[in-house]
Amino acid sequence: MTFAATVLTLYPEMFPGPLGISLAGRALERGDWSLETVQIRDFAKDKHRTVDDTPAGGGAGMVLKANVLAAAVDSVADKRPILAMTPRGAPLTQARVRDLASGPGAVILCGRFEGFDERLFEARSHIEQVSLGDIVLSGGEPAAIALLDACIRLIPGVMGAALSGAEESFEEGLLEYPQYTRPFEWEGRTIPEVLRSGDHAKVAAWRKAMSETDTRLRRPDLWERYGSVRGRPASGARHETKDKDQ
Amino acid sequence: MTFAATVLTLYPEMFPGPLGISLAGRALERGDWSLETVQIRDFAKDKHRTVDDTPAGGGAGMVLKANVLAAAVDSVADKRPILAMTPRGAPLTQARVRDLASGPGAVILCGRFEGFDERLFEARSHIEQVSLGDIVLSGGEPAAIALLDACIRLIPGVMGAALSGAEESFEEGLLEYPQYTRPFEWEGRTIPEVLRSGDHAKVAAWRKAMSETDTRLRRPDLWERYGSVRGRPASGARHETKDKDQ
Repeated sequence: MTFAATVLTLYPEMFPGPLGISLAGRALERGDWSLETVQIRDFAKDKHRTVDDTPAGGGAGMVLKANVLAAAVDSVADKRPILAMTPRGAPLTQARVRDLASGPGAVILCGRFEGFDERLFEARSHIEQVSLGDIVLSGGEPAAIALLDACIRLIPGVMGAALSGAEESFEEGLLEYPQYTRPFEWEGRTIPEVLRSGDHAKVAAWRKAMSETDTRLRRPDLWERYGSVRGRPASGARHETKDKDQ
Repeated sequence: MTFAATVLTLYPEMFPGPLGISLAGRALERGDWSLETVQIRDFAKDKHRTVDDTPAGGGAGMVLKANVLAAAVDSVADKRPILAMTPRGAPLTQARVRDLASGPGAVILCGRFEGFDERLFEARSHIEQVSLGDIVLSGGEPAAIALLDACIRLIPGVMGAALSGAEESFEEGLLEYPQYTRPFEWEGRTIPEVLRSGDHAKVAAWRKAMSETDTRLRRPDLWERYGSVRGRPASGARHETKDKDQ
């Protein structure tokens, strides 16, 4: 089965862009995934092909029209999930990416300007609003490229069997452990002794401990959630509500 | 002053990519920002120009060599901040983006494969490790594109004076309010009455209330932080530590 990506955008010429190069590009050529773009403007029915208008209530920028967006979304109705990239959405997680990558593909709706007329999401409640992170982009396209890149690398065969992505950041709710490679000594700094011990159990234990330490220090938010999932007695109950929102 | 972006990458052909189109592309043509790419491989000094090697301690994938990366980073030493895109980094925030956009530019280091030899960050402690969000990409390039897009739109003149980006998601620690535009009625759904009242104070109050409600429901993490910054008595002290990690 091929992962089928459809991107609804005002700038189809942004695709495949970086996704046509390196890992994702080779996978696209091999047919491990497919990419289709849909020009949102094609669904504007007036003679000027208007896709946006001024915000009701005033304010800067332009808002994408609900009727045009809905027509574009309806045109690709199938079993794939439909995601709208918006800073008002739920932050994307690696778990969601893994879900998507194991499915039939994704339809991604990219906004521009001040965003979408909210009635789109009321009337088309199957659209999932997702956010790449807590930054504001000029449009959804760079976010769509990042999301697709994250999905594509997890498609079976793309990274090869050895690189399942199982041991990496967020897969167990922790950051990945630090990595080292040759030369053994560089600028007076050596590779940690344990990594050259050849003792696989010791290496695994050290990596797990480093993952935990780094997550605790760098990402107290992830660390708190990790603790509650593992059922640390003191804090389990308090965090349950929070986990549901992730 | 022009915002000068330098990207250290193994795939310079990924740039400008989407950044050469639309808002960022027009700003690039006008000279509101500049883009330079540096091929990391040019700093590999052996005859095979090796940039990576197997992870010390075993495991899948390849790790980028500290000596090669350091040579590439050192080659662009100037006053600009240097950011390495990695899921082990601090999550990017709109506040950090605004800081960057008001400065001289940014040097962005993109990894591939299993990541960077950790000694790079020990030996070059001025490198800031940042993460786009809690997903894992095949490399730092799509993240660099998203980060630069977020910066470029905030460069004075790029969006125009009216579009300062002051009223949008994350700028006050809240999600942006929902937007609406014509037609007034669509699929039986109307634009909220208050937005057509012409009463600017009422519109502003409604928007603020909607921002707060949506943030509370969709992003309890942001809402909690917002409350502590505003000094809500019950929870202020407990959250102070957390805020420092953002």
